[in-house]
Amino acid sequence: MRVRTRDGEYSVLVGTGLLADLPRALTESVGARRYAVISDDNVASIHGHPIMERLRESGLDASLFTFPAGEASKTRKSWSILTDEMLEAGYGRDACVVAVGGGVTTDLAGFVAATYLRGIPVAQIPTSYLAMIDASVGGKTGVDVHAGKNLVGAFHPPRLVVADTEVLRTLPRDERAQGLVEAFKHGAILDAAYFERLEAGVHGLLEADAGAAADAVLRSVELKAGVVSEDEFEGGYRQILNFGHTLGHALEAASKYAMGHGSAVALGMLLEAELGERLGVTEPGTRERLAGPLLRIVGLPRSLDVGAAVPYLRSDKKVRAGRIRVVLLRRLGEVDPGEGWSHEVSESLLVEVLATAAKAP
Amino acid sequence: MRVRTRDGEYSVLVGTGLLADLPRALTESVGARRYAVISDDNVASIHGHPIMERLRESGLDASLFTFPAGEASKTRKSWSILTDEMLEAGYGRDACVVAVGGGVTTDLAGFVAATYLRGIPVAQIPTSYLAMIDASVGGKTGVDVHAGKNLVGAFHPPRLVVADTEVLRTLPRDERAQGLVEAFKHGAILDAAYFERLEAGVHGLLEADAGAAADAVLRSVELKAGVVSEDEFEGGYRQILNFGHTLGHALEAASKYAMGHGSAVALGMLLEAELGERLGVTEPGTRERLAGPLLRIVGLPRSLDVGAAVPYLRSDKKVRAGRIRVVLLRRLGEVDPGEGWSHEVSESLLVEVLATAAKAP
Repeated sequence: MRVRTRDGEYSVLVGTGLLADLPRALTESVGARRYAVISDDNVASIHGHPIMERLRESGLDASLFTFPAGEASKTRKSWSILTDEMLEAGYGRDACVVAVGGGVTTDLAGFVAATYLRGIPVAQIPTSYLAMIDASVGGKTGVDVHAGKNLVGAFHPPRLVVADTEVLRTLPRDERAQGLVEAFKHGAILDAAYFERLEAGVHGLLEADAGAAADAVLRSVELKAGVVSEDEFEGGYRQILNFGHTLGHALEAASKYAMGHGSAVALGMLLEAELGERLGVTEPGTRERLAGPLLRIVGLPRSLDVGAAVPYLRSDKKVRAGRIRVVLLRRLGEVDPGEGWSHEVSESLLVEVLATAAKAP
Repeated sequence: MRVRTRDGEYSVLVGTGLLADLPRALTESVGARRYAVISDDNVASIHGHPIMERLRESGLDASLFTFPAGEASKTRKSWSILTDEMLEAGYGRDACVVAVGGGVTTDLAGFVAATYLRGIPVAQIPTSYLAMIDASVGGKTGVDVHAGKNLVGAFHPPRLVVADTEVLRTLPRDERAQGLVEAFKHGAILDAAYFERLEAGVHGLLEADAGAAADAVLRSVELKAGVVSEDEFEGGYRQILNFGHTLGHALEAASKYAMGHGSAVALGMLLEAELGERLGVTEPGTRERLAGPLLRIVGLPRSLDVGAAVPYLRSDKKVRAGRIRVVLLRRLGEVDPGEGWSHEVSESLLVEVLATAAKAP
């Protein structure tokens, strides 16, 4: 897979057992003088060290930099520490960051690379479904701040992405489920047949059957790359990837991130389908159609503080001219163009729809 | 003046009394819904407040954000505080940062804009010679860290630059002198006739005669923009702008920044001319030719710790493949192409040449 950006193209390699060939892929796509491998301390012990060994056996100059696992590490502080450690180790502009991990790592290490000496290359080695499907393509990097998630960052497309679906076996089952939600989202907004294939194969995907996973990751990356190539900086069309995220993010924030990102987006997708149906934009029955597989994967949260979500709606990054805008489906597999790929929605209607979240689908 | 970047073009307006028209220029070039004016607390009282008043009178939504004056503020901490204040005030992606100040402000506020919600536009309103001539064109933004200056940052071209040379009157004379060094550098590397014009008009320039200043700023911006348009990300040709900076930065750092940036670069230019002459690359007499006007403007430092500068040479951003590379003149107004616009130089020769710094030119 090749993904186009304003600066050229990069390769996304998807398959099983690809990590064995990582040194060659890095040499061909990046050819840096030194490699800074960044991962969290969990992933470091599972994947970081074997990767380090492989790079060194191939004669590449590589060192490992780690940070404590978890979203709580996706901060300006971790970014500062990693940057300073690399400076201390004398990494120059001819170095490359190799991010090995889930979405936290690809975002954080990507932001380190984006700002290190005003930008050095990054290779993304996603190790979770979410990172393979979503975080590693599109060039978004960043950290969380007090005011919200991902509010500080940069667009910094990778030089190479290697998604080896064999590593998905090492994930807890729930994390696989959380990540798969984004694949269903890609089907919901762009490809109804893909949605149905995912639904039919969901058992194998949840069990991390490496072949099935590679098929899904490849199709999701294709779909996402198509969108991102058309609108790299989220000026318009790229917004469709935010389907489920306006309400999803608000609920996730209101739960103080106790709710998984996948669970929040799944619920957000159902609610935004409900919203679309109420507005006569989305084909009736779409919410129900989505609910089947999504609730099978991630279920409904046990408790939900709907009122607490409202303030977070207002601070969404996608708020434009002070109004709340939401991406709405026309039907399964198709987004309604609206105005610039989203619809302006009154806060009162959003609150009304949010209130249905607590009820059964 | 129009400057080309990979993302299109931006305008650089140079002249006297341009700030009166700032609201219209912003509306035409940016058209943001809200403006975040950023300046240090000194500049805020001289220029920030009048600009705020003008923007508001024109019906634009604008707020002022300040930070303590001085290079010591060019840190990740100030960047974090400014970012958080803007988030707190609810600035969205349809906002624009307006940086009003010297190089510290254009770099710091530019980096805030580069990373705010993954990047919003910035308009640069430079108020010093250095910022007008150098910092506001080229898209470099960033902050200093413990390991060195400008080691964290991003390339983020402005949407608009307004250089009103009338504001130069408010600067201390020494700061004008420091900034003019970069104009002489532009002459030295690209345009001998311009170097001579600067030399002939140096008195008026130091006194901030607004017309003479506008001529110089315009020519320097033209020259720099020409270089940057050819090589936006410092892959090759753009390096020529680093003439005088390899040794200059090292001396500046060794002085713990007691030495002014202009003084350091002036001395760096003399030493790199000396280096070029010793290597037979630079026409004999060039060091002497440069020394005349440069020493007249900024003089020689009273004391100099040459030994302390050596370790800083090694950590220079432009070090590639672990070797020290220096931009050398062929003659006044022309850089020697070398290999990729610089020459690899042994550390021992650099140390030898550094030792001549303490002596008269």
